[in-house]
Amino acid sequence: MTMYLPERVLVSPSGFKESLSAVDVADSIAAGVRRVLPGVRVDLYPVPDGGEGTIEILATRPGTVVHTTRVTGPVGKKVTATWLEFPEDSVAVIEMASAAGLSLVPRDLRDPTATTTYGVGQLIATILDHGVDRIVVGCGDSGTSDGGAGALSALGARILDDEGVEITRGGAGLAGAVSIDTSGLHPKLADVEITLACNIHNVLTGATGVAEVFGPQKGASKKQVKQLGKALTRWADLLTSTFDPDADLHLGPGSGASGGLGAGLMALGATARDRFDVLLGDLPAPADLDELVASADLVITAEGAIDFQTPRGKVPAEVARRAQSTGVPVLALAGSLGKGAPQVHDVGIGAIQSIMTVPMALEDAVRDGRQLLIDAAERALRLLMLGCAVSGRREDFVRQRYAA
Amino acid sequence: MTMYLPERVLVSPSGFKESLSAVDVADSIAAGVRRVLPGVRVDLYPVPDGGEGTIEILATRPGTVVHTTRVTGPVGKKVTATWLEFPEDSVAVIEMASAAGLSLVPRDLRDPTATTTYGVGQLIATILDHGVDRIVVGCGDSGTSDGGAGALSALGARILDDEGVEITRGGAGLAGAVSIDTSGLHPKLADVEITLACNIHNVLTGATGVAEVFGPQKGASKKQVKQLGKALTRWADLLTSTFDPDADLHLGPGSGASGGLGAGLMALGATARDRFDVLLGDLPAPADLDELVASADLVITAEGAIDFQTPRGKVPAEVARRAQSTGVPVLALAGSLGKGAPQVHDVGIGAIQSIMTVPMALEDAVRDGRQLLIDAAERALRLLMLGCAVSGRREDFVRQRYAA
Repeated sequence: MTMYLPERVLVSPSGFKESLSAVDVADSIAAGVRRVLPGVRVDLYPVPDGGEGTIEILATRPGTVVHTTRVTGPVGKKVTATWLEFPEDSVAVIEMASAAGLSLVPRDLRDPTATTTYGVGQLIATILDHGVDRIVVGCGDSGTSDGGAGALSALGARILDDEGVEITRGGAGLAGAVSIDTSGLHPKLADVEITLACNIHNVLTGATGVAEVFGPQKGASKKQVKQLGKALTRWADLLTSTFDPDADLHLGPGSGASGGLGAGLMALGATARDRFDVLLGDLPAPADLDELVASADLVITAEGAIDFQTPRGKVPAEVARRAQSTGVPVLALAGSLGKGAPQVHDVGIGAIQSIMTVPMALEDAVRDGRQLLIDAAERALRLLMLGCAVSGRREDFVRQRYAA
Repeated sequence: MTMYLPERVLVSPSGFKESLSAVDVADSIAAGVRRVLPGVRVDLYPVPDGGEGTIEILATRPGTVVHTTRVTGPVGKKVTATWLEFPEDSVAVIEMASAAGLSLVPRDLRDPTATTTYGVGQLIATILDHGVDRIVVGCGDSGTSDGGAGALSALGARILDDEGVEITRGGAGLAGAVSIDTSGLHPKLADVEITLACNIHNVLTGATGVAEVFGPQKGASKKQVKQLGKALTRWADLLTSTFDPDADLHLGPGSGASGGLGAGLMALGATARDRFDVLLGDLPAPADLDELVASADLVITAEGAIDFQTPRGKVPAEVARRAQSTGVPVLALAGSLGKGAPQVHDVGIGAIQSIMTVPMALEDAVRDGRQLLIDAAERALRLLMLGCAVSGRREDFVRQRYAA
């Protein structure tokens, strides 16, 4: 029978939140693929999205150095945050979630009006003292909504109320902010280029702003959402008047990244850019994702939960976007397939599969994630190869009829 | 791009126990397939296995008549049992589970030492009175382990203890059986051919007998398994000495079918045969499964739970066996993929997929079975078509390299 099988597979997934890192996801999928096609070439390119796992992925690149720093976490408790250095290029990368991520906020303390990005500012200050030309701030998976006020404080700004007293940390405190004393700001800030690697569709204020969209996800009540929305609008006003009357820190692209950390750092001169452009494009890498995609017979991506949000800029959508110009088929595996999952077909993902096999509880699926994913990749490859066989048999049939 | 897609798909599933009949399963899969390939020809051939749903499937064949009869159910309560007539061929088909199935035994009454096949005998007697040349008894999904004693009683045999009193119904009562008065047996039994459509690997006694293998599934305790094993051995002795000293009713093929109904009816002259040979081969049918398989580009089969038992004679294995000689690719969908599911690849099933999408409870999966199955068929077809695309792209690449 005429049969053509894939010879080169690119595995380019996101991590599965609270279960597997993107590096683990890529390894597991590769293991499943090799069970079915032992001789196939498998390229691994786990995709950083700026959130949790970003440093772990980038740390696999040659010549990188991982640093750790003790900082104040989102609820005031000290945490060990990591940052990555590309010494040859004088670039540092921060994963803001390692200093102020939602996973650092215990469930019983999920109050987005109180959490702070102070630790992010400490991280940046540490890097400024260390000395680099450029800092990339990976946004995503934040547990904060303080408009970056904590980070500014840690970098030396004094945010004051109408009595000239520093306000309390957290988004709610911003309601009382009337002035910012910038005289103590870290002197090296002026010499360093800061880039936010973020979802540029996130804005600080208004109906699609931080309070309305992310407040509830981070544990805010309806009343708190309203309170936070007002406080952040006031904060954007104050940042604009203090730092740059021409900047749009209310609704500008990326102003709402990481609970408004975007706006806070943009006030200090940072630039917000599409996270994938920065993380897959700007940073030194041993291989180029677009080239790997173009050389593959099949691209397998993955995400913890594929749903209606996936087409809106999640990793599988980004991978599919890059595959579309060359027409390489894309398969997406998922821990779960939620509401609206088939919408991903509209952005170029040809097929989706869940790792689920039997009715089971979420905690069991999370615990067994690795094995379920290996098995799911094997099943998916077998079905894909069944398609190769169907195609080959059809072709033989058509050719025979044509020859007769 | 060179791309060959399936033009003819055969859907040949089993039912999903307690969720969807085989007819429903076939319709759901076809709906999912048509979502992806609207123009494809889909042949439906849900596969009867002798158990629940057998009559529903066979009733779709032209010229059949469905009859209903009130009989005594497995726990003594009256039930409405169905049987099917092929009037032109003078054949009747019984689904023993409709008179004595496990689903007719309430969970709190699951005592296989007490349940009876009396209703099955009543069904047969009704058909004998009606008048046909042949009766096919579909075995499977039984809730009984009485060695067919109940059926024999209903057909006029008097099973007596050492005081000449009729024993109580149920497998446990067989321990006291010492003789059978056959003088009152239904007179027409001698004129009718009875065929058991069963799993011929099921035997009545010994380590792989009814008590040991099926007792626990039907709710027996360890003590009851032992008690039942002894009683059934005694019963096989008595059947043999009463009816046919040359018959092997202990370990003969099919003797253990439907909790030993096989042995009971074989004592009366019935023949045990492979259920698929009988149900797919002997009975009048508008289409031949083997021909449909051979004409298909893809065969999709399905089962409620695919696991290590599937290769041992379940519907998907039977379908795959028939596909193997012609090499038609076979995909199996499943409500759940249990322990050992990948063993089905050894019997010719190329790929397996679960209908599960998210962590969920069994009752939700059962409730939403139809929609989950339609969606799963769609996903499977999309992935299969991705394989067709991978194959076509590879072929183009190879041809171009060859031409250059």
